[in-house]
Amino acid sequence: MLDSVPSFATLVSELAKLPGIGRKTASRLAFFILKQPPEQAEALAAAIKSLKEKVRFCSHCFQMTEHDFCSICMDPRRDGSLLCIVEEPQDVVAIERSRSFQGLYHVLHGALSPLDGIGPDALKIPELKKRLMDGSVKEVIIATNFNVKGETTALYLARLIRPLNVRVTRLAHGIPLGSDLEYIDEATVGRAVTARQEF
Amino acid sequence: MLDSVPSFATLVSELAKLPGIGRKTASRLAFFILKQPPEQAEALAAAIKSLKEKVRFCSHCFQMTEHDFCSICMDPRRDGSLLCIVEEPQDVVAIERSRSFQGLYHVLHGALSPLDGIGPDALKIPELKKRLMDGSVKEVIIATNFNVKGETTALYLARLIRPLNVRVTRLAHGIPLGSDLEYIDEATVGRAVTARQEF
Repeated sequence: MLDSVPSFATLVSELAKLPGIGRKTASRLAFFILKQPPEQAEALAAAIKSLKEKVRFCSHCFQMTEHDFCSICMDPRRDGSLLCIVEEPQDVVAIERSRSFQGLYHVLHGALSPLDGIGPDALKIPELKKRLMDGSVKEVIIATNFNVKGETTALYLARLIRPLNVRVTRLAHGIPLGSDLEYIDEATVGRAVTARQEF
Repeated sequence: MLDSVPSFATLVSELAKLPGIGRKTASRLAFFILKQPPEQAEALAAAIKSLKEKVRFCSHCFQMTEHDFCSICMDPRRDGSLLCIVEEPQDVVAIERSRSFQGLYHVLHGALSPLDGIGPDALKIPELKKRLMDGSVKEVIIATNFNVKGETTALYLARLIRPLNVRVTRLAHGIPLGSDLEYIDEATVGRAVTARQEF
């Protein structure tokens, strides 16, 4: 049936390429778009095109921006001696949401993954080295993810940065706020006990 | 942070209007689109536009098509004496997938809902009446959904069609294939007992 309506089938295929969207959901979305007024579908299509046309990455920290530099790098109130290294632009959003950090960022655009052929030069690591050269950064907070790739990247970066006489820290492990202890995995509880703090 | 990248914020808002997509998923999708090659985002935007430009509804049965009539209405092998009435275009897809029906369809584009101001004239019911006038249809299968609106619509249609000397049937209720009896709700089991068939 759907073969006879190629533009519908094409949209389903394109939507199904998005993460977490299977063919069933894609088809449901396509039927929804079909029922919407044309302006609404037009607005969605235009927003997708506009994103790709306007968004670039900050020449300094590689966070997304519509200008040469991002709003954080341009903000004179931010502390240039503190640098937080993250894997992806969305990680910057997560840390900014916490309102706990007033320094600058460096977005790697990925994590090291030798098996996939992703080495330091495939990430923004050469740019990071250059950035650290002028001596203005006093502390680097490594905020890569806490999985195998993220930890590998963190180790690599720590070894790279320490000789430059820069303090290297990592986000703290521990019990998430508002958690019931009994539901937290034993490795996390173990780390929280070891890293216990004065009350 | 995201306020400083308006084209990103706009795409998140547009994606969040889709059914089942909240702001978190919308943001994940937008970041994914940002990372894709431009051709890929372009293809998605073009597919959305093309859907709205090319897809119309069959002048006969109101199923979607890219021509004046849909592929089912144009197929001479289909039995014009059997007419299946459904609420939405996706219902036609569901029945076609079952390969159990060789007649034609009539898509209402909704169900009666007096409280929302949706009466017969807001649906394709006047067009249905006209279609039944020429006497070629011998049986109408009402395949509206089995919820309050769908059942209301089914009752309304049955009363409308019976005086025209056309057989009116409804999809059978019963136990879904492959089910464990103990997990089926009692109303369905009750209907299946009442409507039991010779083995």
